[in-house]
Amino acid sequence: MDESRHALRARRLGIDTQQEAVVYMRRDCPVCRAEGFVARTRVRVHSGSASTIATVNQVLGDLLDPGEVGLSEAAWRRLALSDGDLVHFSHPAPLDSLSLLRAKIYGNRFGDRALATIVGDIAAGRYSDVHLTAFITACAARGLDDGEVLELTRAMVASGDRLDWGAGPIVDKHCVGGLPGNRTTPIVVAIVAACGLTIPKTSSRAITSPAGTADVMETMAPVDLDLPAMRRVVEREGGCVVWGGAVRLSPIDDTLIRVERALDIDSEGQLVASVLSKKAAAGSTHLVLDLPVGPTAKVRTEADAERLEGALTVVATSLGIRLSCIRTDGRQPVGRGIGPALEARDVLDVLQNRPDAPPDLRTRSLALAGALLEMAGAAAAGTGIAIAGAVLADGRAWRKFQAICEAQGGMRTPPEAVHRRPVTAVRAGRVAAIDNRALAMAAKLAGAPVAKAAGLELHAGLDRMVEPGQPLFTLHADSPGELEYALDYVATHPPIVRVEAA
Amino acid sequence: MDESRHALRARRLGIDTQQEAVVYMRRDCPVCRAEGFVARTRVRVHSGSASTIATVNQVLGDLLDPGEVGLSEAAWRRLALSDGDLVHFSHPAPLDSLSLLRAKIYGNRFGDRALATIVGDIAAGRYSDVHLTAFITACAARGLDDGEVLELTRAMVASGDRLDWGAGPIVDKHCVGGLPGNRTTPIVVAIVAACGLTIPKTSSRAITSPAGTADVMETMAPVDLDLPAMRRVVEREGGCVVWGGAVRLSPIDDTLIRVERALDIDSEGQLVASVLSKKAAAGSTHLVLDLPVGPTAKVRTEADAERLEGALTVVATSLGIRLSCIRTDGRQPVGRGIGPALEARDVLDVLQNRPDAPPDLRTRSLALAGALLEMAGAAAAGTGIAIAGAVLADGRAWRKFQAICEAQGGMRTPPEAVHRRPVTAVRAGRVAAIDNRALAMAAKLAGAPVAKAAGLELHAGLDRMVEPGQPLFTLHADSPGELEYALDYVATHPPIVRVEAA
Repeated sequence: MDESRHALRARRLGIDTQQEAVVYMRRDCPVCRAEGFVARTRVRVHSGSASTIATVNQVLGDLLDPGEVGLSEAAWRRLALSDGDLVHFSHPAPLDSLSLLRAKIYGNRFGDRALATIVGDIAAGRYSDVHLTAFITACAARGLDDGEVLELTRAMVASGDRLDWGAGPIVDKHCVGGLPGNRTTPIVVAIVAACGLTIPKTSSRAITSPAGTADVMETMAPVDLDLPAMRRVVEREGGCVVWGGAVRLSPIDDTLIRVERALDIDSEGQLVASVLSKKAAAGSTHLVLDLPVGPTAKVRTEADAERLEGALTVVATSLGIRLSCIRTDGRQPVGRGIGPALEARDVLDVLQNRPDAPPDLRTRSLALAGALLEMAGAAAAGTGIAIAGAVLADGRAWRKFQAICEAQGGMRTPPEAVHRRPVTAVRAGRVAAIDNRALAMAAKLAGAPVAKAAGLELHAGLDRMVEPGQPLFTLHADSPGELEYALDYVATHPPIVRVEAA
Repeated sequence: MDESRHALRARRLGIDTQQEAVVYMRRDCPVCRAEGFVARTRVRVHSGSASTIATVNQVLGDLLDPGEVGLSEAAWRRLALSDGDLVHFSHPAPLDSLSLLRAKIYGNRFGDRALATIVGDIAAGRYSDVHLTAFITACAARGLDDGEVLELTRAMVASGDRLDWGAGPIVDKHCVGGLPGNRTTPIVVAIVAACGLTIPKTSSRAITSPAGTADVMETMAPVDLDLPAMRRVVEREGGCVVWGGAVRLSPIDDTLIRVERALDIDSEGQLVASVLSKKAAAGSTHLVLDLPVGPTAKVRTEADAERLEGALTVVATSLGIRLSCIRTDGRQPVGRGIGPALEARDVLDVLQNRPDAPPDLRTRSLALAGALLEMAGAAAAGTGIAIAGAVLADGRAWRKFQAICEAQGGMRTPPEAVHRRPVTAVRAGRVAAIDNRALAMAAKLAGAPVAKAAGLELHAGLDRMVEPGQPLFTLHADSPGELEYALDYVATHPPIVRVEAA
């Protein structure tokens, strides 16, 4: 059939639909009429040698000229288009891997290569949100055995880049289920690199939280390094803390996490595959995991932690990764600051051995660094924490951190917010609970993470006694409007820091 | 907080996104900045007294003016907007029913009122496609017991309108899993209404098929009747065949079916709830179900049919509906025509007792009508088919059908297509298989159901002997272009009617 008969001219509409590629087509255009496309039809779209699967949205009015097709940003990028390029349409090949997914839904184990095939289709953009959700839900409802988790992990690794750092232990750390302010990474990297280990750390930016490790690090040094630049830093200093966005490590993971977040589903198999696929792709050989346990944390009980550690260990071992899990207190934020620059201040206070440095952040960082030193043979069993403490205390960690920042492009001083307002206790008593979610929301409304200096500073941890009028936390913002907005939120919601009469 | 500060002016973009309400907001608009909305955020949108939950798409360029928000057709309708109306935004209330859904995913039975709560949230538009898919998948993966199916069915009924026809049996029919051309409804309605029973039949239009019963009926009489008009027809003639779009019977069903179709999932519990919620809402008391069984039908084996009948019977009984299931041949289309007018011709041929009327359509209609007559007490056991046959043979059914058409607004003659082209056998032999899916696709490419006269006419059923050059089917179209398009499809795909050497 003559394809040019059904071509439309590309027009960039500038609509951000996240990952899902969308094409906007007039309902009366020749392609919709001929192919029978209606709203929500999945279509194959190609231009030149590039092609993708997209979802049709139909246009009824004059938003588009006849002969034009509008494209969302995701579709525009994947097809590498210029305005006016000819775009062709066809029915996509049947999604054969759906039958493998249906078999799982109906209770069968994923067969040989099933997960590789499904992940391949996801990587190729063939799965809509509906398909992705069915996959996530089926895995959660039917469960994945260790063999299935291993195959899923391997398929996720294969879907992206793999880093190779040559011989020698490559150490790494990760925190399962973020805790506000738990910014141990820059400290751990500085300590273990100062001890001669190799730790090429990639971190993420915030998606729904007030700060990701990359956002925090960015207030102290550039983090947008490409792979050759990252490699130069690691070769020179033994470690780095860069944004993972420039390398595609297990890119499927981000796609799946977006759906899991919408459902608030924690499937153990997915969690294990998510963590370990990123680490295997990053070339890590020794990994320490920070597992915060607490009623509002991702891991809620010691029993859950036990089971999760078991699954992580089995799969990590099969992937050739040595793993150590450290259970930590997940009941409250770590450190004082929440927001990129405020968290960076906590990190710097610990690295510089300031007397008022947050002790919980220091202790936790030493525990993780110590475990890594022991695993990788840089410290004898039982001596890791002491060695880490010594490297921190004598300034070697701080000098290493400065050197890493210089190698990444130059050290910076985290900015400070102009507008601040304390939120005080209305009565005397004991801090009985801290709502981590509401705390994060207030920090975001104050401007974090986009405004680097914005966020909040927590003054009273759990079980602290407070007096009426004593500040519980201080909001930081770049503009009076943002400060007001965060204060509005605090004033109209249940107390974020709950004080009970002693 | 002052809400007007965060209002935007409504602009209708004319974008059809199907059921999902979408709002298009500039990334740099004050609302996105203040509320932290990003692409895909779910937001509560309200204007005047109307509100809905919508998905954010962000606009980067000049598609919108600052201060404007674009709305998809679904959002525009739900908010009943006019251009320039002020629209307000807020974070939606937490979706508490997700915890009930997660409990099911993790293996618990849906508790008391859980399904009512979930269906309530779906009806209120609070579930995104991701949430809907998780619900569908969880029900399929974990299964629903009869009690859960009953609660789901009741919740679906409660989500829409309920019709009340007063005392006396209200009879109804339904076909589970459409079969091309299986247009028994107008014939069954005419026969049972002629026998004095009440059959207020609502039918659907085609969604993915070349014709729905409402499309077929519309070529013979108006079908867009509102409830008072429908009631007048039923009071006068005892029966009707109208489009169900004017009444909202179990509207959730359409929402769920759309997701099930994308996944090609047939969950038995969902199927039972889907069929019976529509019938309970329609006020039916006696129901006969046509269950086509065949390798490419929805019900594939006799064992599947057995199990499905069991579940249907338990739930129907609890709802106070008497049910009779008739298993029929689901291996090939029924009658000759595929497409609205062509199927109407088959219906008229049977009603008018023409010698060349399709015998399979006649036989099936009599079986269904006979079962209804016996169930509702209008025929003694074992005499239903004979009585139905007599009513058809002596012209009473035909006269009743004409009277119903007149009462619905006046009888019409189905249109005939101007452009026709036979597709012939290339060799002698026996018709070994008919690809129902490809047959439906060819009819749609020829213009059905939008072009009422378009579609195709099948000349050779299974096991018929054919000679080279003998027509297998004839394509009908309103324009030479559509005819060519359907012929293109036929020429470039495997044979739709497969002839094997005898």
